[in-house]
Amino acid sequence: MNIGIVGLGLIGGSIAKSIKQNTDHKVFGTDIQESVICLAKLMEAIDEVLSDELLPQCDMVIVALYPNDTINYIQAHAGSFKKGSVVCDCCGVKQMVCDALQDPAAKNDFVFIGCHPMAGKEFSGFKHSCTRLFHNASMIMTPYFSATPLGLIEAMKKFWLSLGFSNITLCSPAEHDQMIAYTSQLAHVVSSAYVKSSLAHKHKGFSAGSYQDMTRVAKLHEKMWTELFFENKENLIGELDGLIERLVEYSDALKSGNRGSVEKLLQDGRIMKESIDYSYGMGSFHENSDR
Amino acid sequence: MNIGIVGLGLIGGSIAKSIKQNTDHKVFGTDIQESVICLAKLMEAIDEVLSDELLPQCDMVIVALYPNDTINYIQAHAGSFKKGSVVCDCCGVKQMVCDALQDPAAKNDFVFIGCHPMAGKEFSGFKHSCTRLFHNASMIMTPYFSATPLGLIEAMKKFWLSLGFSNITLCSPAEHDQMIAYTSQLAHVVSSAYVKSSLAHKHKGFSAGSYQDMTRVAKLHEKMWTELFFENKENLIGELDGLIERLVEYSDALKSGNRGSVEKLLQDGRIMKESIDYSYGMGSFHENSDR
Repeated sequence: MNIGIVGLGLIGGSIAKSIKQNTDHKVFGTDIQESVICLAKLMEAIDEVLSDELLPQCDMVIVALYPNDTINYIQAHAGSFKKGSVVCDCCGVKQMVCDALQDPAAKNDFVFIGCHPMAGKEFSGFKHSCTRLFHNASMIMTPYFSATPLGLIEAMKKFWLSLGFSNITLCSPAEHDQMIAYTSQLAHVVSSAYVKSSLAHKHKGFSAGSYQDMTRVAKLHEKMWTELFFENKENLIGELDGLIERLVEYSDALKSGNRGSVEKLLQDGRIMKESIDYSYGMGSFHENSDR
Repeated sequence: MNIGIVGLGLIGGSIAKSIKQNTDHKVFGTDIQESVICLAKLMEAIDEVLSDELLPQCDMVIVALYPNDTINYIQAHAGSFKKGSVVCDCCGVKQMVCDALQDPAAKNDFVFIGCHPMAGKEFSGFKHSCTRLFHNASMIMTPYFSATPLGLIEAMKKFWLSLGFSNITLCSPAEHDQMIAYTSQLAHVVSSAYVKSSLAHKHKGFSAGSYQDMTRVAKLHEKMWTELFFENKENLIGELDGLIERLVEYSDALKSGNRGSVEKLLQDGRIMKESIDYSYGMGSFHENSDR
């Protein structure tokens, strides 16, 4: 089939390359930067430049832009998508994107499926895109269950799996946003705040795995994450305030000098972590932690 | 030379195995558990069982116990160490350990050098020990500069490097404890608190690298970490309260609805992270982050 990709950044670029490497589909791609389109063509990540003329020939269009740009693009081109075709986004928030696109999809006879590839890097842009990005990653899909034929959802699952994803999660946009506030957005806030200690610049020689883990995603794109945070504000504030409350418990227990309380707090966390890992048979194994 | 190792857990066991693999030194080892001694002998991680009779024949003794057990062991055996020999610990706190052992060392003619191998795993015990544990890790040494010949410090550096460590940091016990409160202890508190959200049990399918990073070290030994925390209470409370304060800034900015403030907070963190990484030419590169 013909697949259009709008936005050839880290995600869009990696999807294009993964399709070319793993399937026989044709890829039409476009980007706001002319130079990126040229590069994508030279590197054979795309077969053709996605023009307004080619758009109606696409059986699937994947929009890999920021949330508001995604909505604007799909609304502006709603009449041009092929009837019966699938249009996906790649945004890290789903409720506002899916809410905005349900009507345009229904009115113009295309199926919109909210998608969120759980993959990324601390680096962005086409030059960092690669086919390995989705290897063993999770893809979250938030289709309108009433408006999406089951067969189409199955076909989409197979499509994403063919690109290297190892797990497909189906849920509502609301559930997605609630979970992502905790599993991803909160992690970025913590990392950003963690790295700001006045001691951070002296960390070398004193840090091992746990420090690297805590600060890794502080290297984020502030414009994108600010947009994602505000489109999911209530959930994120809830998780952030919950974490602050829990951290205050540890601080209070330390200040009170009550070793039993601190040990209990740590024990509860350890048990929680073990039960979560074991229930999925994950049993993580990393070296270079520290004691 | 003859090296005694007291405590054959993850750290002591890994040191024993690393010495046997990388050097020609003889290793005498002991542990509170008879079965561990047997296993270590069977696996040729030690040459002989370290008895009270063999202790005075050791040119170096490495004590790999919890802080208070370390102090107790070295004080109790202060008269038995070979004159002029080196005794090291492996504790995650240095001020209280070094303070307690300076006098016994001076009075009994051995040299005590505080050591902290910045390596570990979420698993403990001899069965998880391995020679790869110290590969590319940092070793922190906090010798009494006035009481330790420079040549001995150089020899110790070479010794640790021969086991696979790639970086040796020399500093005072106070500086160690201050830095470790931030780079390691705080990370363990955050991880423990992070994993306790009511959403944690549903994370599978919604989590990628950043979540795994945040929660990895929640699987800790609460007894050991409680002891480490309380021996470094003031530093840890300072860092923990500093982090809480910074997290509240993000929460307040989100609640105020001021996108500029949130973007600025994230930007400051990103710049800080970049300046720290670049100043050491590290430029981390991990996949399976998430957006």
